[in-house]
Amino acid sequence: CFAFQMQTVTIIPGDGIGPEISTSVIKIFEAAKVPIQWEERNVTAIKGPGGKWMIPPEAKESMDKSKIGLKGPLKTPIAAGHPSMNLLLRKTFDLYANVRPCVSIEGYKTPYTDVDLVTIRENTEGEYSGIEHVIVDGVVQSIKLITEEASRRIAEYAFEYARNNQRNSVTAVHKANIMRMSDGLFLRKCREVAENFKDVKFTEMYLDTVCLNMVQDPTQFDVLVMPNLYGDILSDLCAGLIGGLGVTPSGNIGANGVAIFESVHGTAPDIAGMDLANPTALLLSAVMMLRHMGLHGHAKKIETACFDTIRDKKVLTKDLGGNSKCSEFTAEICRRVQDLD
Amino acid sequence: CFAFQMQTVTIIPGDGIGPEISTSVIKIFEAAKVPIQWEERNVTAIKGPGGKWMIPPEAKESMDKSKIGLKGPLKTPIAAGHPSMNLLLRKTFDLYANVRPCVSIEGYKTPYTDVDLVTIRENTEGEYSGIEHVIVDGVVQSIKLITEEASRRIAEYAFEYARNNQRNSVTAVHKANIMRMSDGLFLRKCREVAENFKDVKFTEMYLDTVCLNMVQDPTQFDVLVMPNLYGDILSDLCAGLIGGLGVTPSGNIGANGVAIFESVHGTAPDIAGMDLANPTALLLSAVMMLRHMGLHGHAKKIETACFDTIRDKKVLTKDLGGNSKCSEFTAEICRRVQDLD
Ligand SMILES: CC(C)[C@H](C(=O)O)[C@@H](O)C(=O)O
Ligand SMILES: CC(C)[C@H](C(=O)O)[C@@H](O)C(=O)O
Repeated sequence: CFAFQMQTVTIIPGDGIGPEISTSVIKIFEAAKVPIQWEERNVTAIKGPGGKWMIPPEAKESMDKSKIGLKGPLKTPIAAGHPSMNLLLRKTFDLYANVRPCVSIEGYKTPYTDVDLVTIRENTEGEYSGIEHVIVDGVVQSIKLITEEASRRIAEYAFEYARNNQRNSVTAVHKANIMRMSDGLFLRKCREVAENFKDVKFTEMYLDTVCLNMVQDPTQFDVLVMPNLYGDILSDLCAGLIGGLGVTPSGNIGANGVAIFESVHGTAPDIAGMDLANPTALLLSAVMMLRHMGLHGHAKKIETACFDTIRDKKVLTKDLGGNSKCSEFTAEICRRVQDLD
Repeated sequence: CFAFQMQTVTIIPGDGIGPEISTSVIKIFEAAKVPIQWEERNVTAIKGPGGKWMIPPEAKESMDKSKIGLKGPLKTPIAAGHPSMNLLLRKTFDLYANVRPCVSIEGYKTPYTDVDLVTIRENTEGEYSGIEHVIVDGVVQSIKLITEEASRRIAEYAFEYARNNQRNSVTAVHKANIMRMSDGLFLRKCREVAENFKDVKFTEMYLDTVCLNMVQDPTQFDVLVMPNLYGDILSDLCAGLIGGLGVTPSGNIGANGVAIFESVHGTAPDIAGMDLANPTALLLSAVMMLRHMGLHGHAKKIETACFDTIRDKKVLTKDLGGNSKCSEFTAEICRRVQDLD
């Protein structure tokens, strides 16, 4: 007989409404008897030796050990030179793939129905290289850096994802008609990787065409893979199609099984501490996390309870069209989770 | 008594369905007694002295004289090294501003109503600089070039446009949180120019946020100004909101009054020559052209006839949901133009 070893997850509640929605997720996980234990950490960057901004060692160590994080919204402190916390986390843990499933939520009305797609964004290079120069006064260059390795890695991730999640097709999104060498390299790697995934359909589309087609009929898309900036844009666009960042989950996947799941909305300081926040995006990110950890049963149960609550329309937070508190919405999901047992 | 001097417009029918939709516009202009004469030219690039691709001299001269062009869709020939015709035209005539009004068309159903915005895209530099390098094997750089001059010029154009077209606000679209120097320069110029247009409201927004908000509620936007690639994306996205490229007009504005108005859809080779094409995008581009030339009365009349025909739903081309031929749709607009006299 083995002692049952619970997996640890590092929880980073974050700022503003972060603590409230994190508490909500923790409660719902308790109700669902998810076999994990939380280790809470603060990741707000500090100045390390040599003046370099870094994640506090306690947070870094926790993540290095647990490998899995769940993160609420963070504000980037205004201190001069303070890096974007999102960028710093991506860099610190080499979180190379940003994954955002966008699925229409029944009962939450938007101009679209039946959206069911996933954007997979290269998260480490491209337009986010941070390399810029002044050439002469009034003339500036920014460098978009595309490497074979990062392109192959993200393409492989996208095809693996498609295969493991019963998806049919992967579309590479690019502007290789304009950036022939950089997007050309990205596209070539996608094509090469596609050769090894004959069970997944591969298509290519210009970014502008994707945007045009997306708003006309998003149901034509399945898995989309693309360089960093295009992913920044498309992931937000697609979130908009299903109701915005308040209901869209997100995961950042790194090498060696490291991953941080997060809600990508802001800290909403105006309603922080007032029990008015909507925990859905963080909860659905936590559901992604459970699937990533192989806890499919718990994932399904929590997801069902969340979607049933929204479809039912009786207990909703304000932004979802109701007038319930965050704690009431949470309690309703907990109740449904227990009913599903 | 002065002899009345008709203005000349260079017409570039283009490829595929280009000649049909150009004929349609010419007929409607005749019915509306627009006081212009057409000079037809072919712009498909030829190899000039030194092997450089160039617009044929007859086309270049016509445009230099008339200053105003109306252009159907062009296919880029497959000959090795042949440049994109769109890029070559922008470059040849320094067409620095791409202007796309996106206005919901009554009677043509899309998920959105009351869209009424204009995207203004910097058309000469940015990610379209064409400067790319291989650094080492498997590592490629593309350079995004932003200049003070081009940024100021496009910002000024946007504010002038807003002022002259009774628009209330200009939003600068950027990623200066990531590309601090290049988008930072663009944004700074927008801010500076805004100081000289106190009658126009100025706001700034991240590109990803614009995309998100755009698909949730496009009615919040008015005039949007942005660097080249962002304009490529947003202009197509916005076209999608009102029904696609088949109904979206476009104008490319250069220095010294030069301008080319064009439909931005493709050549549709599958239906070319079959009298099935929809001339709306080219016609509405021609209406933009008339306004640019100060022929507001004729513009209004043709626009009204076109929109009335669509709203009425009796005579529509296939892509608009009807089963009329291009020539029938054209004849209906002509009839209405004459009725409006
Ligand atoms: C906050 C910002 C640095 C970030 C980005 O541009 O990547 C954000 O938009 C995102 O998508 O996570
Ligand atoms: C054809 C292509 C070069 C062009 C672009 O990328 O600018 C097109 O998408 C456009 O918007 O005119």
